[in-house]
Amino acid sequence: MQRRKVRIAGVGKYLPQTVITAEEMDERIGVPIGWVEKKSGVIRRHFVNGETNSQMGAYAAREALEMAGLHLSDMDCIVCASGTSEQAIPCTASLIYKELDPGHQGIPAFDINSTCLSFVTAFDHLSYLVDAGRYRYVLLVSSEIASIGLNWNHKESCALFGDGAAAVIIGPAEDGASGILSSHMETYSQGAHLSQIRGGGTKYHPRTYAENIDPDHFLFEMDGEALFRMSARYLPRFMKQLLPKDLTMKEINLVIPHQASMMAMRIMQKRLKISAEQMFIFAQNHGNTIAASIPMGIYEAVKQGRVKRGDKVMLIGTSAGLSLGGIILVY
Amino acid sequence: MQRRKVRIAGVGKYLPQTVITAEEMDERIGVPIGWVEKKSGVIRRHFVNGETNSQMGAYAAREALEMAGLHLSDMDCIVCASGTSEQAIPCTASLIYKELDPGHQGIPAFDINSTCLSFVTAFDHLSYLVDAGRYRYVLLVSSEIASIGLNWNHKESCALFGDGAAAVIIGPAEDGASGILSSHMETYSQGAHLSQIRGGGTKYHPRTYAENIDPDHFLFEMDGEALFRMSARYLPRFMKQLLPKDLTMKEINLVIPHQASMMAMRIMQKRLKISAEQMFIFAQNHGNTIAASIPMGIYEAVKQGRVKRGDKVMLIGTSAGLSLGGIILVY
Repeated sequence: MQRRKVRIAGVGKYLPQTVITAEEMDERIGVPIGWVEKKSGVIRRHFVNGETNSQMGAYAAREALEMAGLHLSDMDCIVCASGTSEQAIPCTASLIYKELDPGHQGIPAFDINSTCLSFVTAFDHLSYLVDAGRYRYVLLVSSEIASIGLNWNHKESCALFGDGAAAVIIGPAEDGASGILSSHMETYSQGAHLSQIRGGGTKYHPRTYAENIDPDHFLFEMDGEALFRMSARYLPRFMKQLLPKDLTMKEINLVIPHQASMMAMRIMQKRLKISAEQMFIFAQNHGNTIAASIPMGIYEAVKQGRVKRGDKVMLIGTSAGLSLGGIILVY
Repeated sequence: MQRRKVRIAGVGKYLPQTVITAEEMDERIGVPIGWVEKKSGVIRRHFVNGETNSQMGAYAAREALEMAGLHLSDMDCIVCASGTSEQAIPCTASLIYKELDPGHQGIPAFDINSTCLSFVTAFDHLSYLVDAGRYRYVLLVSSEIASIGLNWNHKESCALFGDGAAAVIIGPAEDGASGILSSHMETYSQGAHLSQIRGGGTKYHPRTYAENIDPDHFLFEMDGEALFRMSARYLPRFMKQLLPKDLTMKEINLVIPHQASMMAMRIMQKRLKISAEQMFIFAQNHGNTIAASIPMGIYEAVKQGRVKRGDKVMLIGTSAGLSLGGIILVY
């Protein structure tokens, strides 16, 4: 166990203005009314209509700063932990920083990317720098625009996703109670191509879009069944590593899973013997917001009173990679 | 000073097969013979001809593992620290991992991106996890394909860049001598748009390439003069933070700067009063290889005998963001 004395000081969230209901999505992808809700369990999700990653991230960050009673100038580091980025260059953290306050300057800003697990990876790794005193406060922002990369011919994946941003400020745990009890990540690159967007990077540069490259290469694709199989296979072994020896699943007050899909969460719940009361599901009104999903869950759980100081919370998810990752913390 | 007991255990490098001389570049961009060499100081650079980021990264990683006398299975974490990525999803670290050994599995893999400073940022941050014992060995890989994003109408920037990869393995400093003495990073997001590729992310999705978006939005652009001015302005103040109070520039055995451009390195040398003997310049045969530039410098310095165990080495550079970053270490 690598206990780290860090504390979540503030949380923030932003959802784009445009709401797309399950029925509207049914129409958009050309399926009978009721199909999207039945298939995905997502009743409504938000899609951007002009908002950028950096704008959404800045909104969420401002709310987190307000809750923490802190100012931007109190931050020692800004990390954008997202699976999508606004531009190819520079990193999105710089753009969020500029959006937050173009006048204030000097805070280091960079991106961490492990797709849907980016937030967990960033929180896990930056906690060591807070614990060591290198940084006092770190602003972690996950801001995702899933909608722009959806393939409207792949109805199953379109039904799942939503856009939005969440921000979490971590700082020292001066209360002596809050902290990270354990964290773990595993990557199984056998599954690297089970969920992917082939294009947009150096392999298929955007200019090849106009050439004889399949335009679907620039859109999200996933082999849902193979992903489920692979995640389910490694999950129990992964959990043995994540759960400290002196802790049982029953002692966890709340599990905040990545809201990948209702089906994925049900499989996880069953495999890991998580009770319905422990499991925090909020995808109904958000969809899968990639890396913003888990910090949005922290936000919702805090705001709904589902988590209070001293509670043991488990963050857990899978991501393209294929990776499994999790953190057990005392809120 | 946050001393961290970490040691560079191995280094590796890979350059693509295709060499482009300054004269060939003169022809390609349509300038008189001699222009590119005079303007950039780069006599030859390598460009990919089919190689991918993950293939180049894997080559460099294998060499680093061999030098360290370690196997892939000894690694506790794989970080791709690059400014370019192979695909939009998943992270390039997963793809490098797959390329290294599609059979071996379980090592966490993710990306860190601060453009040209990605390696410095990753080394700096991961050193805390090695120091804390979370990870024993971390494989850091920077693999860059600059050539695909160059705008051939911007002769100045085309003259500068090259492709390639470098890998560094960091591990515990059991010798008691090696370690990080100091590290620092600052971001000035006022300069976020001074060097950028606007497209390829969510702002201008590749599909907009075929629409009425300026195709140059998907290529690299920079305002070289403004970048120089801004970097030069903040550099002395930055150095005061980086250099520990008990250390002077004269005591640094070797400075390995990001090989941004000959002009940028000359300005840095002058502003920071670095002697010619201390300054390690190798851009002549490599060009600016984005984040791979600094670890390539470590590789070249080690192989050329310019750095030996116990030497104090400064890694320093600027990146899109605009960021300044550096590490002072005992090799």
